[in-house]
Amino acid sequence: MTIDAAFSELTTRVKRVHTLGLIGELLGWDEQVNLPPGGAEQRAAQHAALAEAQHEAASAARLGELLLELEQQDATLSADQRAVVVQVRRDFDRATKLPADFVREKAAQGSRGYHAWARAKAADNFAGYAPVLEKNLELAQCEATYLGRGAAPYDAMLDKFDPGLTAAAVEKLFTELKRDLVPLVRAITASPVAAQARAVNAKLRGFPVADQQAFLREVTAALGFDYTRGRIDVSLHPFCSGTGGDVRMTTRFNVDAPLDALFSSIHETGHGLYEQGLPVADLGTALGIHAGMAVHESQSRLWENQVARSRGFWRHFEPRWRALFPMQTEALSAEELYLAVNAVEPTLIRVDADEVTYNLHIVLRFELEKKLFAGELAVRDLPAAWRAASRELVGLEPATDREGVLQDVHWSDGAFGYFPSYCLGNMIAAQLWYRALALRPALEEDFARGDFSWLLGWLRTEVHSHGRKFSALELVRRVTGESLSPQPLVRYLRERYGAIYLR
Amino acid sequence: MTIDAAFSELTTRVKRVHTLGLIGELLGWDEQVNLPPGGAEQRAAQHAALAEAQHEAASAARLGELLLELEQQDATLSADQRAVVVQVRRDFDRATKLPADFVREKAAQGSRGYHAWARAKAADNFAGYAPVLEKNLELAQCEATYLGRGAAPYDAMLDKFDPGLTAAAVEKLFTELKRDLVPLVRAITASPVAAQARAVNAKLRGFPVADQQAFLREVTAALGFDYTRGRIDVSLHPFCSGTGGDVRMTTRFNVDAPLDALFSSIHETGHGLYEQGLPVADLGTALGIHAGMAVHESQSRLWENQVARSRGFWRHFEPRWRALFPMQTEALSAEELYLAVNAVEPTLIRVDADEVTYNLHIVLRFELEKKLFAGELAVRDLPAAWRAASRELVGLEPATDREGVLQDVHWSDGAFGYFPSYCLGNMIAAQLWYRALALRPALEEDFARGDFSWLLGWLRTEVHSHGRKFSALELVRRVTGESLSPQPLVRYLRERYGAIYLR
Repeated sequence: MTIDAAFSELTTRVKRVHTLGLIGELLGWDEQVNLPPGGAEQRAAQHAALAEAQHEAASAARLGELLLELEQQDATLSADQRAVVVQVRRDFDRATKLPADFVREKAAQGSRGYHAWARAKAADNFAGYAPVLEKNLELAQCEATYLGRGAAPYDAMLDKFDPGLTAAAVEKLFTELKRDLVPLVRAITASPVAAQARAVNAKLRGFPVADQQAFLREVTAALGFDYTRGRIDVSLHPFCSGTGGDVRMTTRFNVDAPLDALFSSIHETGHGLYEQGLPVADLGTALGIHAGMAVHESQSRLWENQVARSRGFWRHFEPRWRALFPMQTEALSAEELYLAVNAVEPTLIRVDADEVTYNLHIVLRFELEKKLFAGELAVRDLPAAWRAASRELVGLEPATDREGVLQDVHWSDGAFGYFPSYCLGNMIAAQLWYRALALRPALEEDFARGDFSWLLGWLRTEVHSHGRKFSALELVRRVTGESLSPQPLVRYLRERYGAIYLR
Repeated sequence: MTIDAAFSELTTRVKRVHTLGLIGELLGWDEQVNLPPGGAEQRAAQHAALAEAQHEAASAARLGELLLELEQQDATLSADQRAVVVQVRRDFDRATKLPADFVREKAAQGSRGYHAWARAKAADNFAGYAPVLEKNLELAQCEATYLGRGAAPYDAMLDKFDPGLTAAAVEKLFTELKRDLVPLVRAITASPVAAQARAVNAKLRGFPVADQQAFLREVTAALGFDYTRGRIDVSLHPFCSGTGGDVRMTTRFNVDAPLDALFSSIHETGHGLYEQGLPVADLGTALGIHAGMAVHESQSRLWENQVARSRGFWRHFEPRWRALFPMQTEALSAEELYLAVNAVEPTLIRVDADEVTYNLHIVLRFELEKKLFAGELAVRDLPAAWRAASRELVGLEPATDREGVLQDVHWSDGAFGYFPSYCLGNMIAAQLWYRALALRPALEEDFARGDFSWLLGWLRTEVHSHGRKFSALELVRRVTGESLSPQPLVRYLRERYGAIYLR
């Protein structure tokens, strides 16, 4: 068998696995957007049947043979072919090294864990949830062992979401970020302007959903989201799913918080632009899938924050917004609008946090996860450790575990190692942003004309087109010429928020 | 292995195959309702990947072993178990007796055939399409041979849609129907009332979509459609998909033809009520799937025609309809509305036909299909045969093939034998209707009070709850005490339409 024939058979098989995964994503999207309540049980059976079919395809012995054949001839592979083979090996090992019994147990425990978490959160009862979390930690350790990474289980978790990422690398970045960010947040929240921002936001009331919908559709289309290759719907929690020619975003509306739906849909648009920008012919291989959650998050955050909270963006969209909502906005000055868009207010809850304080919520979670995996922190001591860390980092101490350690769903089904991606995404976004500004200093002038095409074109070329050929850290170095660093993020937050709050 | 253990493993496997099929239905629903144009290619790949997974599950060797084991102990099976085993054997043979190459060829030919048909219809060019149709016929013959029914290939086609149905049985029913129906249609269309009905329908203009939507939702919910276990959306062609707790109907709106969306959604509601009424615990086995297309169609037609075109139905809904559309209906008398609801007008096009003439369109297609399979009619002679039959049966001769032999999609992908189900469904509906009236003579009084629960309850018990345990013909005999006959349909049409047109 020639290399090309083997490679071709390999990609056909891998694309089929990916295609089955996309069906699963569609089932998930439909569940959030369309499913009548009576369909829940059937949908669970559909997920299970599909997962079984996908696992069969992903662990087919033939795939292992093709991998061996191609790996033996590694030297003759092109760089692109090698990237594909490396990724297939990663996925194949994950599909075959974990025993079926273990996968079933982990899935069942994830489901039990989710319900136990929901109950514990409702009752503010951490003690009842602790055994579940202990079990989840134990299963994560097992999983790392099966994957041959028992010595560095937390690295194995991080690697699931961002290939190649290590706890040591994250710690270095986060320590530096924390050093600079904590005093900045203290200074901003002590500023009298912070109270003003709250007051302005409270004035935004009575924005009809239909007009909000029309506005955010105009905005997201102007940013470059292609509605012939995607759509936006309503769900309880905003998300983005799908890829290539069928990318589906969701948002949710509140007539008394019109900036929420707008910014959440711009956030999802960032994810969507990335998925729409992947090379269509290679969807499902490493050449046509995203580079990991950190890079994904960098795309959503760049559009949501650096772009859509800028003065240039609002110079263009403010008139249209006022025209759609004349009565609701007549008492609002342009400066007040800008303040509302960039309001900062420390909160106990991560998902409610502004972009300045958000990162500290992530640092907190990373530090606790790391200690849990190192055996330096016992699950039963988590609530106290959370309170202490929250006081130190966010400046607020939760009165209940519901507002503390029980607030997030992630750990309940064993998704350790996911949180850091959010903050790394913010760092990458800022670093990309300054690189873009260096290449095109008048970027905000583009925005003020409603032109986002240069930025999108640059991201298409520099980020989207590469798929998963490079890890997050490699990609940042390639695009910006420098290693990933928290300094661009700190600089960006100082520049934008310093100008507002620390005048 | 005990019988019960074997039976339990068999049902688990069969339900999984069914579940994968439901995912395919959802992909199809989503394609018609949501899919952005750019997603077409990915969706095709999803269908293909899923079909492959489903075929693997449906043809698993283990399923064959279980079947043999259970069939060897047939005498000890319960009646329900036997029904399940018979159905699994049927599906297993279909999945395993057709060689993979043949299935692939047929699928590819079906796709080519569809596009060839669409082109031929647009260009009114039957000659270009004839070779495709010849190939489809040849493949159908092959399929029958693989299934061991090469001697009766048309029966094998009918059996696909209605288990156990034969051409001889259909012919007997259709010959009798034709004899009585042709003169009835002639008399009705010669009536001066027919022109009046047309004129009234032409007056129904300017019904806003949102209000049409609200009205048909009220109506379909009142009939018994459970919107916690289903939904209704908009698509180009109305259809119903899904089963059990997740049944999805579609309709389409025309502001100048308000009865279209209403009756098409009541039609789909009939299908939906059937699917919602199947025994949920048995979904996917013969105890929890519909009894074939004729019975399915009987449910949609019964609600659409016998129920929703009745005076009782409109006594209840007319006030609400007028309240929603006061200006559009002020010049319309109650009698005119009833006439519009029951308008008869011969047309060349099957899908535009009223319920009286519709059946003749089906008889026409059945007679031609039968001759094609018997070798008594060559494909090249189809257009002329169609024109002659249309003149004889419908009383109209198409000037073009587009309005004649090229009007329907079914043959283009080899779906021979499907058409008869439509007319058999109408016969079954009428026969069930008179049985229901015999048991509850005041049925229309129920309707006039907005109460459809007795009828639905009766159908649930007599039809829905049996799944596929009985063939269409057996079911009719069980429920009505008589063999399936065209006479109830003829009687119903004479009574309802005679009273309007032949006074």
